[in-house]
Amino acid sequence: MSDETKYFLPEDRLPRQWYNLAADFPVPMPPHRHPATFQPLTADDLSAIFPRTLCEQELTTERWIDIPEPVREIYRLWRPSPLVRARRLEKALDTPAKIYFKNESVSPAGSHKPTTAVAQAFYNKAEGTRRLTTETGAGQWGCSLAFAGEVFGLEVEVYMVKVSYEQKPYRRALMETYGATCIPSPSTLTESGRQILARNPDTSGSLGIAISEAVEMAVQRDDTHYALGSVLNHVCIHQSLIGLEAMAQMEMAGDEPDIVIGCAGGGSNLAGIAAPYVREKINGRNVRIIGVEPASCPTLSKGRYAYDFGDTAQLTPLLMMKTLGATFIPPGSHSGGLRYHGMAPMVSHMHDLGYLEVQAYPQTACFEAAVQFARAEGILPAPESSHAIRAAINEALRCKEEGTEKTILFNLSGHGHLDMSAYMDFFSGKMSDPEFDTAQLAQALSDLPEVGV
Amino acid sequence: MSDETKYFLPEDRLPRQWYNLAADFPVPMPPHRHPATFQPLTADDLSAIFPRTLCEQELTTERWIDIPEPVREIYRLWRPSPLVRARRLEKALDTPAKIYFKNESVSPAGSHKPTTAVAQAFYNKAEGTRRLTTETGAGQWGCSLAFAGEVFGLEVEVYMVKVSYEQKPYRRALMETYGATCIPSPSTLTESGRQILARNPDTSGSLGIAISEAVEMAVQRDDTHYALGSVLNHVCIHQSLIGLEAMAQMEMAGDEPDIVIGCAGGGSNLAGIAAPYVREKINGRNVRIIGVEPASCPTLSKGRYAYDFGDTAQLTPLLMMKTLGATFIPPGSHSGGLRYHGMAPMVSHMHDLGYLEVQAYPQTACFEAAVQFARAEGILPAPESSHAIRAAINEALRCKEEGTEKTILFNLSGHGHLDMSAYMDFFSGKMSDPEFDTAQLAQALSDLPEVGV
Repeated sequence: MSDETKYFLPEDRLPRQWYNLAADFPVPMPPHRHPATFQPLTADDLSAIFPRTLCEQELTTERWIDIPEPVREIYRLWRPSPLVRARRLEKALDTPAKIYFKNESVSPAGSHKPTTAVAQAFYNKAEGTRRLTTETGAGQWGCSLAFAGEVFGLEVEVYMVKVSYEQKPYRRALMETYGATCIPSPSTLTESGRQILARNPDTSGSLGIAISEAVEMAVQRDDTHYALGSVLNHVCIHQSLIGLEAMAQMEMAGDEPDIVIGCAGGGSNLAGIAAPYVREKINGRNVRIIGVEPASCPTLSKGRYAYDFGDTAQLTPLLMMKTLGATFIPPGSHSGGLRYHGMAPMVSHMHDLGYLEVQAYPQTACFEAAVQFARAEGILPAPESSHAIRAAINEALRCKEEGTEKTILFNLSGHGHLDMSAYMDFFSGKMSDPEFDTAQLAQALSDLPEVGV
Repeated sequence: MSDETKYFLPEDRLPRQWYNLAADFPVPMPPHRHPATFQPLTADDLSAIFPRTLCEQELTTERWIDIPEPVREIYRLWRPSPLVRARRLEKALDTPAKIYFKNESVSPAGSHKPTTAVAQAFYNKAEGTRRLTTETGAGQWGCSLAFAGEVFGLEVEVYMVKVSYEQKPYRRALMETYGATCIPSPSTLTESGRQILARNPDTSGSLGIAISEAVEMAVQRDDTHYALGSVLNHVCIHQSLIGLEAMAQMEMAGDEPDIVIGCAGGGSNLAGIAAPYVREKINGRNVRIIGVEPASCPTLSKGRYAYDFGDTAQLTPLLMMKTLGATFIPPGSHSGGLRYHGMAPMVSHMHDLGYLEVQAYPQTACFEAAVQFARAEGILPAPESSHAIRAAINEALRCKEEGTEKTILFNLSGHGHLDMSAYMDFFSGKMSDPEFDTAQLAQALSDLPEVGV
C-alpha cells in the first residue's frame, strides 16, 4: 500500500492504443441503422459528416486502436491525468472505505472532453476538413473542440444550448479565447432551428436541437464536418484512456476498485472510466459499475431501450440506446452536460447486459456533495461531476454503516470554475430540483420511430 | 536532455524546509520599524495581529525553516506543482529559446497563494486563534485563505477591494464555497473604511484600504488574527517552495534557467520562484531575474526605496520597500492582484542590490500574450500571470532575433477561469490601458513618513 495522495503515470506510459469495449461484449452491440432505410449503417453512410477514419472507428469491433503520434503529442499537455486518493474526504466521512478519483479537470478545457476533441480534430485535418461544427450544452465540449480546432488549424462553429449560452457567458468567452465562434441554439441560421423557433419561440433549447443545427450546417458545406462530444462509439473509445490510465495508476497505488462510478449524460466519461473494468467484469471479476444521472433527466432509469435518433430533427443515424425519446426536452438545470435524451449505445448495452447499476439524484443533493468535496479536497467540481461525487459519498457512507472497507474509484470529469453561478444559486437558496415530466416522457416515447427490427 | 512535457516531483521530494533568502543577502535587509517609535520591530510588536511563530519567521535570518508535517500533508493535495516545458509555445514563436513554466494554477484556489495560506492558518490554529481577517484584491488570496481556514477550522472574514468585488462575483462565490465571509471594501464596519468613504464615497477601493480594515478588525478582537497574502517576509519564505521545487524539476529536465521571470504585485510569487536562483546569483552564477509589473502600477520602476506603511490608514509596521506611497491609489485594472502601492521588502532589497531587473507592460499587451499562451498550451492564465508570460515571450523573441538559445523559466502564478470577464473585455475591444498618474505619484511620495534613519 502506497501512502501518496496523487499518482502520476510517466508520459511514456501514456497508452499507445485506445480500448474498444465493443470487442469484448459477450453479445454484440446492435448496429446503428440508416435513418431512412433502417439498414445497418455503413462507413459510407457516415462519411457525409465524419472523416473516414472516425466512420470506421464508429463501426469497428477491433479491440485496440492505435493513437496517432501527433494526438499523443497534444495529450501530453495534460495526460496522463492524475489519480488522487481523497484522504481528507475519507476522514471527513469517517468511513473505512478508500476513495480515489481520476482528475480529468486538469485538461485545457477543464474536463475529459478534450481527449476525444483532439483525436477528432486530428483526423479531420488529416483528411482535408477546413471547418468543424458542433453543439454544446454546458460548454465543456464546445471549449474542448475550440481548443482542438485551434491546435490543428480548423475553424470551429459551436451551437450552444440557449439556456447555457445565457447562464454561462464565461464558457463562451473561453471558446472565443481558443478562437471559435459560438451561436445560441436554436438559431435562425438553420432550417431545424427556424422550425423549432416557429413552434416554440421561447424554448430554452436542448442538446438534441443543437445537434440538428450543427449537423445541418455540416451537411450543407463540402469543407465542413460535424463533431460530437459524446454518445457515439468513437467518442467512447477515445475516452477509454481515462480507464486505462486509472487502472495503471490503481496498480501504482497497490489497490483495486470494488466500485467504479461515473456521471452519465451522453455517457462518454462513464464509458471511459468503466470500459476496462467492464472488460474485467465480463471476464468474471467482481466489480460494481455505477452510472449516475440527474433525477430530472433519468435516461437510464426511466428511458426505453430502443432505436432512436440522436437529435430532435431526426438527421442522425438511428442508435440502439436507452432513450427518453428524441422529442423529450429535459427541464433546465445546472448540469447542462447531463441534459440529453439518449445514452451512448455502448453504455446502454452495458446496462442492458447487466454490467451497469444506475443511480439518479436531484441536483441540490449533488451540490451538497460538491461543497463537501471542495472543502475536503480543494477542487471545485463541475455540476455534472458532482453526481458522481454524490454516489461515491453515499457508497462510502454505506461502507461505514456496514463496516466494510471497499475501494471506490470515481471519475471527476471536470471542474466547476466556469459554473460558479450555479454555486451562487445553491448558496442563496435559489436552486430547486426540477420535476421530471412523466407526461412529456409518455409523449416522447410514443414518438419513437418504429424500426421493427 | 529529457523530452517530457511535464515534470512531476514525487511527493516524498516535497521540500521539508522553506528557504529564507534573508540569510544570504551580502547586505542585511533593513529591519521593519515600529510605526510610532521608528525603532526596529520586535516579535512582540507584531504579536497583536500574528501568531508568535509567524512573528518570529518575519524577523528571522535563519536560512532554513522546518515545514510542519500537517502543513506538508495539506500541500500534498496539489504540491509539488508541475514544471512544464512550453514546447508548443516555443514552436509558435519559432524561437531557439527553451521555455519552462512552473504551474501554480493547479492549487485549490488556482494560484500560488494557498502555499502561504495553509501555513498561516496552521500556525494560527496551533496558537489558539479562532478567526482570521484578511484583504483580497482579485480574490485569489481571499479564496486561498478561505480554503486554508476551512482546513484547520478557523472562521475567515475577507475584505475584498470593491472594484474586484463587483467585477468578480465568481471569486466571491468560491470564497463562500470554502465557508468564508466576503465584505466589499471600503466598508462601514471599520473606522478606516468609514473615513475613506467620508472623503471619497465613490472610491473603487484599494488593497491598502482593505488591509487597514482587516487589520483594524483583527486588533479589536482577542480571538482574531490578521493574515497577509503577500509583501511580508514570512509570506515570501513560504513561497520559496515554488523556486525550490522548480530547481529540482529543472534538474530532472536536465536543464538550467538563464532567465527567471515572475510577475510582481506584492512580490511573493516573484520572491518564491526567484529566491533559490538569487542565492545562486549571489554565489556568482550568471542568471537574470526579471520582475514584471503593470505599467499602471509600476512600483519597482517608478517607486522610491523608502520606509512606508503597508496600508492606507498607517496601521502596519513601517517596511523598507519600493513604494509609490501608501496614499497612492492605482487605477482600476483587470490585474487586481498587482494593484498595490508597495513591494515585498525582500524583493525590494533584491532590486536595490542589483539582483533584479524590472519590466513593465500595459495590460492589453499582457492579454495578447495570455491568448497566445492559451492557444498554444491550453491553460488560460490569470491576468496577473499574463505579465510574466509577456516578458517570457519577449525574451524568447529576442533570442530568436539574436540567434541565442537561452533557457527561460517563468512562474505561471495562477489560472484565469474566474477572470473571464477580463477576457470578454479584451475580445470586445473594451479593454484600455489605464494611465499612470504621475501627479498622484508625486503627491503620494511627498506623503511618505519621515523616518530619518
